[in-house]
Amino acid sequence: MPMSAGVPPRGDTGAFRPAGLVTLLTDFGLRDPFVGLMKAQVHARLPGARIVDLTHDLPPYRPAIAAFWLERARHWCPPGTVHVAVVDPGVGTSRRLLAAEAGGQAFLGPDNGLLGAVLAGGAARVWAIDPAGLGRFGLGTPSATFHGRDILAPLAAELAAGRAAAAHLGPVVTDWRPSAIPVPRPTADGLEGEILLVDRYGNAFTNLPAAVLGARPGPVALEVAGRRLPVVRTYGDAPPGTAVALANSFGVLEVAVVTGDAAAELGLRTGDPVRLGGA
Amino acid sequence: MPMSAGVPPRGDTGAFRPAGLVTLLTDFGLRDPFVGLMKAQVHARLPGARIVDLTHDLPPYRPAIAAFWLERARHWCPPGTVHVAVVDPGVGTSRRLLAAEAGGQAFLGPDNGLLGAVLAGGAARVWAIDPAGLGRFGLGTPSATFHGRDILAPLAAELAAGRAAAAHLGPVVTDWRPSAIPVPRPTADGLEGEILLVDRYGNAFTNLPAAVLGARPGPVALEVAGRRLPVVRTYGDAPPGTAVALANSFGVLEVAVVTGDAAAELGLRTGDPVRLGGA
Amino acid sequence: MPMSAGVPPRGDTGAFRPAGLVTLLTDFGLRDPFVGLMKAQVHARLPGARIVDLTHDLPPYRPAIAAFWLERARHWCPPGTVHVAVVDPGVGTSRRLLAAEAGGQAFLGPDNGLLGAVLAGGAARVWAIDPAGLGRFGLGTPSATFHGRDILAPLAAELAAGRAAAAHLGPVVTDWRPSAIPVPRPTADGLEGEILLVDRYGNAFTNLPAAVLGARPGPVALEVAGRRLPVVRTYGDAPPGTAVALANSFGVLEVAVVTGDAAAELGLRTGDPVRLGGA
Repeated sequence: MPMSAGVPPRGDTGAFRPAGLVTLLTDFGLRDPFVGLMKAQVHARLPGARIVDLTHDLPPYRPAIAAFWLERARHWCPPGTVHVAVVDPGVGTSRRLLAAEAGGQAFLGPDNGLLGAVLAGGAARVWAIDPAGLGRFGLGTPSATFHGRDILAPLAAELAAGRAAAAHLGPVVTDWRPSAIPVPRPTADGLEGEILLVDRYGNAFTNLPAAVLGARPGPVALEVAGRRLPVVRTYGDAPPGTAVALANSFGVLEVAVVTGDAAAELGLRTGDPVRLGGA
Repeated sequence: MPMSAGVPPRGDTGAFRPAGLVTLLTDFGLRDPFVGLMKAQVHARLPGARIVDLTHDLPPYRPAIAAFWLERARHWCPPGTVHVAVVDPGVGTSRRLLAAEAGGQAFLGPDNGLLGAVLAGGAARVWAIDPAGLGRFGLGTPSATFHGRDILAPLAAELAAGRAAAAHLGPVVTDWRPSAIPVPRPTADGLEGEILLVDRYGNAFTNLPAAVLGARPGPVALEVAGRRLPVVRTYGDAPPGTAVALANSFGVLEVAVVTGDAAAELGLRTGDPVRLGGA
Repeated sequence: MPMSAGVPPRGDTGAFRPAGLVTLLTDFGLRDPFVGLMKAQVHARLPGARIVDLTHDLPPYRPAIAAFWLERARHWCPPGTVHVAVVDPGVGTSRRLLAAEAGGQAFLGPDNGLLGAVLAGGAARVWAIDPAGLGRFGLGTPSATFHGRDILAPLAAELAAGRAAAAHLGPVVTDWRPSAIPVPRPTADGLEGEILLVDRYGNAFTNLPAAVLGARPGPVALEVAGRRLPVVRTYGDAPPGTAVALANSFGVLEVAVVTGDAAAELGLRTGDPVRLGGA
């Protein structure tokens, strides 16, 4: 089966060269002005910055889903992007803040696994942000509970402007926290994993890489919630209401109901087991 | 009754001249990074682009409401705007993608009625985007399920930058799909139509054009949900809690409850019949 | 107890010098294109404007919460910012629109208390926008129900571009409407107030200023919902599930449950009484 499975368009692995572009990925929601004030703090230091919201609706207190999205999303962002990621229940405690460079982009966020999937690539360089050095950037005493606004947004502006380098923010770190994204396990005739997240349409992303489909000789099916689903190429390849599996645009297998809501109709939740095997 | 009924401020019907401004109108929601990655793809090709979210909370699978908003919204956007509209349950199938120019602006979206209300104006020029020609713009093989990110956002950047013209994207099309916005029907003493959509405040937009009020000699009333509502000029013209009809800021009649939620309080839903007649 | 309680980083009190930056604070929600069309109208007049959404999810018809956020948020926005605030149930009636300058920034919004907390500072200058003078800015007849799009966004662009000054928009006003933010009352051993708002995490902001903690000699506790809560420095200072009070990053005391949802778990709502006293 020919698959066009969300292959990232870029493979830039060069050095970070700032491009004035900052992305934000948080669990802050949009009900309160938290995100807006991070943006105001970026513009205060880099008036011409472009700021892209990746999402602010991540589930609070669960860095694994954020880690997945950050690792996937970065591939469609241009070289020189500065990514700021904040899902940070440990704010104000002794947890570290990290700065990193990987694939020609820079990353800022707490050391709680949020950056783990990006850093796992191997070519990343990672530093711990030294709180004692923040005065150099004109940063006053941060609040105890909003480091996104008080530390990370201003530093993102400094990196995006090219006035500071991640390497100057603190000492090199090699013991950063890995992501908690669950890893699939091989089975006799395939792979088993779980539901990672449910998207806006009710499509359920699994942790099974789409690439596994290309490596198999025969037809396959995905077992989930007591059903065996056919693997199709796109939503329109089956009649409305059909439950299917497909390689989605982020390179993983997902469970969908054509023009429907798979999570609601099949009763799927994050953590539910899935199994790919012969059809 | 003097009416200031959402008259669009511009009537530009000249040629499209790119202005570096892109709007996005989708059903992608903001829970996932889908919209953010469309923006990242625009900035990757046109770093200085300005990007305006019209809305991302359109109901999935119902292009008629999107068609209404796109046709109305464009009138308050400057000449040279590139509009990207994606409500696209047919993604990855043989449905066409369209590029169009109308009223000095450009439009990109699937051929499923989404652009139909804009194109119905008469002066529009429409082309079908040729998938075989996308390589010219450095576009790789798109995913099967996310053409907003993989095709439309990059092309929007090319149009907004003036590096490509809609006319170069594929052959001229005249059989584009019309919008499914329902058309009002004349009655003995007025007009009958239906509820098109319910907005954030619970105000219910009808498909009855506000202009009909100016054409009538005497007082009028709107029948909806078994009630006859007075037509007022603005929300503050009746006491809190009163159900009223008025010409809204987008040029259609709407049903409102003063400082209340008309849809909830009157039990209104998309598709419910309304009738304008003598008071 | 050392406190880093959301001390604003800037104290600019100079004259307003436009910086091309506009913030938006409304109750428009993001379901409909209302906010997008305000932005399109800003870009139509100032193509290079940067626009920051503070929030659009304010509760409709309740200017007090908006007034609190606007007054707090401005401190993290750079000098020269133009703030547009719209929670405006009186749109289209005789209520006035105001323009103001305070702390090196400009403000536009209805005269319903929304700007009251900003203006209460003392050094503000305030003008009533003269509807008869809007023609000078090329503004046509506004709709009766959407002055954010038809008046305030275009004027914000004119102010942000430096083509108009607030002082030119109408006569000086001294009888602007104060905010309806409730004021705390002193008690025998502390201060009593109420829950102002609940944020995205379920944290409940009170109207008690965090500064009161620094002024007290001994340990303190916050009474709310029949409980006495310890006052901690940050969320991570108590075990998960613990209900605590702390000085938050906006300079007020808040009630939180560590990695939980205080409003849901303690049953808190806007207006509930709180009392700070000796522990």
